[in-house]
Amino acid sequence: MASKNPLPAEETLDPQNWESLRALGHRMLDDMLDYLKTVRERPAWRHIPEQVKAQFNQPLPLDPQPPEEIYQEFLENVLPYPVGNIHPRFWGWVFGTGTALAAFAELLAASMNTNAGGLDHHSAVHVEKQVIDWFKQMLGFPASASGLLTSGCSAANLIGLAVARDIKAGFDVRRDGIPGASRKMMLYASQEIHSSVQKAVELLGLGSDALRYVPVNDDFQIDLQALKATITQDRQDGHLPFCVVGAAGTTNTGAIDDLNALADICQRENVWLHVDGAFGAWGVLAPGVRSQLAGMERADSLAFDLHKWMYMPYEIGCVLVRHEEEHRKAFSLTPAYLTHGEGGRGMTGGDLPWFCDYGFQLSRGFRALKAWMSLKEHGSRRYARLIQQNIDQVRYLAGLIDASPQLELSAPVTLNVVCFRYLEPGLDEGGLDALNKQILTELHEQGIAVPSGTIIRGKYVLRVAHTNHRSRRDDFDILVREVIRIGKELALAIEPA
Amino acid sequence: MASKNPLPAEETLDPQNWESLRALGHRMLDDMLDYLKTVRERPAWRHIPEQVKAQFNQPLPLDPQPPEEIYQEFLENVLPYPVGNIHPRFWGWVFGTGTALAAFAELLAASMNTNAGGLDHHSAVHVEKQVIDWFKQMLGFPASASGLLTSGCSAANLIGLAVARDIKAGFDVRRDGIPGASRKMMLYASQEIHSSVQKAVELLGLGSDALRYVPVNDDFQIDLQALKATITQDRQDGHLPFCVVGAAGTTNTGAIDDLNALADICQRENVWLHVDGAFGAWGVLAPGVRSQLAGMERADSLAFDLHKWMYMPYEIGCVLVRHEEEHRKAFSLTPAYLTHGEGGRGMTGGDLPWFCDYGFQLSRGFRALKAWMSLKEHGSRRYARLIQQNIDQVRYLAGLIDASPQLELSAPVTLNVVCFRYLEPGLDEGGLDALNKQILTELHEQGIAVPSGTIIRGKYVLRVAHTNHRSRRDDFDILVREVIRIGKELALAIEPA
Repeated sequence: MASKNPLPAEETLDPQNWESLRALGHRMLDDMLDYLKTVRERPAWRHIPEQVKAQFNQPLPLDPQPPEEIYQEFLENVLPYPVGNIHPRFWGWVFGTGTALAAFAELLAASMNTNAGGLDHHSAVHVEKQVIDWFKQMLGFPASASGLLTSGCSAANLIGLAVARDIKAGFDVRRDGIPGASRKMMLYASQEIHSSVQKAVELLGLGSDALRYVPVNDDFQIDLQALKATITQDRQDGHLPFCVVGAAGTTNTGAIDDLNALADICQRENVWLHVDGAFGAWGVLAPGVRSQLAGMERADSLAFDLHKWMYMPYEIGCVLVRHEEEHRKAFSLTPAYLTHGEGGRGMTGGDLPWFCDYGFQLSRGFRALKAWMSLKEHGSRRYARLIQQNIDQVRYLAGLIDASPQLELSAPVTLNVVCFRYLEPGLDEGGLDALNKQILTELHEQGIAVPSGTIIRGKYVLRVAHTNHRSRRDDFDILVREVIRIGKELALAIEPA
Repeated sequence: MASKNPLPAEETLDPQNWESLRALGHRMLDDMLDYLKTVRERPAWRHIPEQVKAQFNQPLPLDPQPPEEIYQEFLENVLPYPVGNIHPRFWGWVFGTGTALAAFAELLAASMNTNAGGLDHHSAVHVEKQVIDWFKQMLGFPASASGLLTSGCSAANLIGLAVARDIKAGFDVRRDGIPGASRKMMLYASQEIHSSVQKAVELLGLGSDALRYVPVNDDFQIDLQALKATITQDRQDGHLPFCVVGAAGTTNTGAIDDLNALADICQRENVWLHVDGAFGAWGVLAPGVRSQLAGMERADSLAFDLHKWMYMPYEIGCVLVRHEEEHRKAFSLTPAYLTHGEGGRGMTGGDLPWFCDYGFQLSRGFRALKAWMSLKEHGSRRYARLIQQNIDQVRYLAGLIDASPQLELSAPVTLNVVCFRYLEPGLDEGGLDALNKQILTELHEQGIAVPSGTIIRGKYVLRVAHTNHRSRRDDFDILVREVIRIGKELALAIEPA
């Protein structure tokens, strides 16, 4: 195109020097493998110093900085101060460990930079379909079920409960909203259910008052009689019970609800069964606990993570929905610029459903790749062995605690969670709470190990939630030894001299 | 612990051979850089063959497969069939391009495998805080605003609208749900607003009937008189207008609503102003369009992506909320196992808010790292030049279309979107629709370029949405030349012989 003014030169964000960036990339890759290989030699956690925090209070960069310098800052200020969950003695909250090949997969996925939200006849949607098919098979779901990879189990719970709400309402919730309901829509879960369920209920406009927290039995499972009585009472009060949320592994103690009993109740009551299986769902792979999860495969929807007990790096979760058309009905929305399914040719001419029709994300990254590579790298049998190993290791830990007069188990150990506390004669409950909090802080600050803390039946306790493929029995020996050492030291300091 | 039976040997998912995995990683890294460097030499898109699709219908892997073999399958079956958005002639829908260093950042983030949902005194939360501070500054938001990195703008819109709902309802929506409302809560957006807004409204339980689609003017901006009249009518009908959603760059045409006028109306009406700035928000960096976005900085909440116009790899979006306490109030929920903010020491003893208190995700990956490295690598001035370059390039394209008698512009070009169609004398509107659909399919199947299609005022048109840092003016020359060539060829075939 001729022009009086010469057109401006064009630039790109591609590297100005590919070979120097290549050299930097190779350094990064070596460093990351060394970092993973040597993780056991470092403390479980290091408190980031104040002068390092200050490095993240910088003015907006106006001009380019050489990548080598940026990486140097990463090496000095970011890498040495991780949250720590790849360490063999990290068992806090429920965090995942990750693997080297899956980290490489993230490099591959980000280089392709595939948007897996939809479109036809490209590889990413087939990879995602493949891994979801595998998950269905591993978890006992029918091949006809639908599935969606998500950012994690919070999003998966949100999607499962949205489908439940829309399908069981008896009117068009997507169009009319909750104001269209003639009866208040109620759902049920145990007092031990994960907080993401309440957050989902709130986001869905149902109100946390609609979520009935049902008491638990001594094993921290939902009390079935109380559940049935609550549903009956709600019906008598004119409400619409529409969903029960079962726990396949609670966060606090790892308890597994009686899922077959829940499925029976849901069938009888015509309510949706959603199972939150964040980490616990994968217990089905372990011969030692599989039978406790019986009934999970009868759920209408099942939410779970891959970045916890399947050891994949963040973020990856999944939701399965038994009836594909119900799942799609709750989420599909196709404006003019997303029309698809025509003809067979071109990027919108396929017959595979688009994943964006099964959730609230439209643009979606290629998280399926790390799942596909990981499942092939290890095979389901190795995953099964690792999960059983984690279960055996927490039983080993429970044995150590039982054998230690200074320590007390605070809840039954059914899956991969151990809650316990240090005992000091002469201290009242308030004193024991304070002491155990201090023990936890010292375990962190001294870089020994990372359990977390929680409240069990009103008492503050230490909590080990184990989804770590790097831990050895030795690591639990160290934990027990150090809890006792620190407990004794702290107790000396607080007791009257 | 002594035991009668020897304890079983322990295994890990760490590589059995670190050095062979290292060699593979270096190969991957070289391959990915070569892949990026040579993207221009490949077709813009390739239809995945049926026999390759069949490779993703395999039985569940039971036993390990060597990583080298898995990578070979990736090279043969995944990498050659991308959706294609890194290609210099990919302008379909609104997809992003990504960069090499940001892909490396994903490797670093996945190796650290940081969960950035919360916890104190580790680096990832400081990195995220830093990049959100920079975004606030770039987009004119006050330093006191809160922000959260999200999977993308769909999630960011959902969060912004959830805060609007909860703050403007006048009662405790989180507890009581929508049933607590005495009046129907209504919100407003133009007919051109992105579908993720309706999906969010549906998910939030408001019902799509509560979303008033206001007509647009000739420039595809929301009609302000119609908006005011609709709000007034809704008040007269006893409803509660609570939110206006402004578009900073519509998907169909790139139109920008008059955001200052919307802010004035919202102020007067006491309703929330949420702005969907998915890609368009970043127009503020470009001198040529900055003034059109005036008023965006007055929004109560602003949603935008980084994986479109800031060229970062998937997934990364962000929501900013003007008043931090309103944002936190809508999402914070702290069960016993997440108690924090005590004392200053340990992993729960900090004073920084936890990011999980600002959205629905609890576990969160370290997506901040790629943003931090990218902003430092390029600096805001280079981003500004690239965004202006994209705008200049679509104006160049519009000029080419204007100069071609076979082509017709279908909407004003205000930002980075060009809608146009091929004209064939003698064809009626139905025939032109069919012809332009065919042209699009051929552009894809022949691997020439990837625009997408949409409907503008009832007519099917080709649509270029340009957020690609690799495109040159030459690429648009090719597009125009090939559309005309294909159009002529197809028209010959369909016209009576």
